[in-house]
Amino acid sequence: MKVGIVGLGLMGGSMGLALKKTQRFERILGYDINPIHLQQALSLGLVDECVSLQEIFKCDVIFLAVPVDGIVKILSEIDAECVNPNTTIIDLGGTKSQINHSISPALRSLFVGAHPMCGTEFFGPKAAFDTLYHDSIVILTDLEQSGAYQAELAKDLFIAIGMKIVKMDSISHDKHIALISHMPHIISYALANAVLAQEDPQTILALVGGGFRSMSRLSKSSPAMWKDIFKQNKENVLHSIAYFQDKLTEAKEFIEGEDWEGLEAFMAQANTLQKFL
Amino acid sequence: MKVGIVGLGLMGGSMGLALKKTQRFERILGYDINPIHLQQALSLGLVDECVSLQEIFKCDVIFLAVPVDGIVKILSEIDAECVNPNTTIIDLGGTKSQINHSISPALRSLFVGAHPMCGTEFFGPKAAFDTLYHDSIVILTDLEQSGAYQAELAKDLFIAIGMKIVKMDSISHDKHIALISHMPHIISYALANAVLAQEDPQTILALVGGGFRSMSRLSKSSPAMWKDIFKQNKENVLHSIAYFQDKLTEAKEFIEGEDWEGLEAFMAQANTLQKFL
Repeated sequence: MKVGIVGLGLMGGSMGLALKKTQRFERILGYDINPIHLQQALSLGLVDECVSLQEIFKCDVIFLAVPVDGIVKILSEIDAECVNPNTTIIDLGGTKSQINHSISPALRSLFVGAHPMCGTEFFGPKAAFDTLYHDSIVILTDLEQSGAYQAELAKDLFIAIGMKIVKMDSISHDKHIALISHMPHIISYALANAVLAQEDPQTILALVGGGFRSMSRLSKSSPAMWKDIFKQNKENVLHSIAYFQDKLTEAKEFIEGEDWEGLEAFMAQANTLQKFL
Repeated sequence: MKVGIVGLGLMGGSMGLALKKTQRFERILGYDINPIHLQQALSLGLVDECVSLQEIFKCDVIFLAVPVDGIVKILSEIDAECVNPNTTIIDLGGTKSQINHSISPALRSLFVGAHPMCGTEFFGPKAAFDTLYHDSIVILTDLEQSGAYQAELAKDLFIAIGMKIVKMDSISHDKHIALISHMPHIISYALANAVLAQEDPQTILALVGGGFRSMSRLSKSSPAMWKDIFKQNKENVLHSIAYFQDKLTEAKEFIEGEDWEGLEAFMAQANTLQKFL
């Protein structure tokens, strides 16, 4: 079997490395729109060979690891008649509804929507590493719309690279993930900008400890990738920001009103998060 | 020399372990208001002996490692006439202005205000470890008001446990730290509560990846300790929350208005934080 990976950044590059270790494929092919990424991917050994997008479409398994607007675009470009009916196309995008709506009925059974809940704040081929996926969750969405063969193969591959599978419809996915991933990214970007907007950010940032480091880590993430996500999941992200703003206002009012017992109870309630994580 | 540590949780307990390694003191004494902490501190070897607060006051060096309202209270209880004029009293509180104002003129030269920029979200004696302070910054505040002997000894001890020293007046300290530590904690508590307030937090939290973990880590921090900090640094914390809210609103408006280029530029601006960290 041959596998083709479109997009050779953190997610696609790490997928190449992880699949290589499974020894399931005789050849791992890669494609990236950025010629520098192609070079880097080859010299880092993320894929065996770089080929054209048309060559990728002939593979037995195709991973789409580009920003989510790119996934929609590539899916629209695949000519169903040129694709082997046993092909499995798996996307790794962080939103799922719009991608699912955009796929043509002729291709739908070949397609599996997947969202691996792992990543780092770094991006590009140099950020890739072989254990990125290990021990993380992958959410497979609207799996009943995929062909039985494709669904099984996808599950098999994700398990082979060490992932735990959760199934979900794409609408619930986008709602939940807005809250625990998309909105926290917006917060981190806003926090970074709140500090950078100060008169002398350098003096202030010379003092940072571990707390600020963890809160600002996500603000290093790729703007190009995240722009697409916020675009495709606009309504859910706005709702999630509103939930957060309400809670922040609650905390602020405790402080303004000097209701220290209320604030302590608010923090004790937040402490209960530990039970779930 | 004898050192006495008041408060044997994460900060005080780790200070006991760190000072033991320096071999500067013949005896490390400890005190905690909580009898369970005393037992734990002894069995974990955080201090050599637990004694009364009055015994601690007789030590050559005294560390105050309790919540900041507790620091103010203890400083008011120290009878300047019973304290050796060569004593050095160092507090490790996360706010500095109110503590500095509360100390009596008779004790002022014996006192050094310090804020080690390290910690974890865990608390109590069991959270203590010997390298907590290593490689972190400690901010020494209003050092010109301390005696020359006390200032030198404090610097010496912090360097001996592996810290880097930054000097600052307590008013600037409280302003800067509100922004890079106190406000980010409020955000983390509010984020945790935004998710916990959902209909089925368990289902949502089963999906979390590394992003949410780092954003919610601080929400596990001690409510008792943080309540005092927000109380003592109320105005700066409220200003910092307002700065953050402005930036969050800016991001939200880009999303609402579908200004994706504006949003991308906002995120690219946040990316520049990396230059400073």
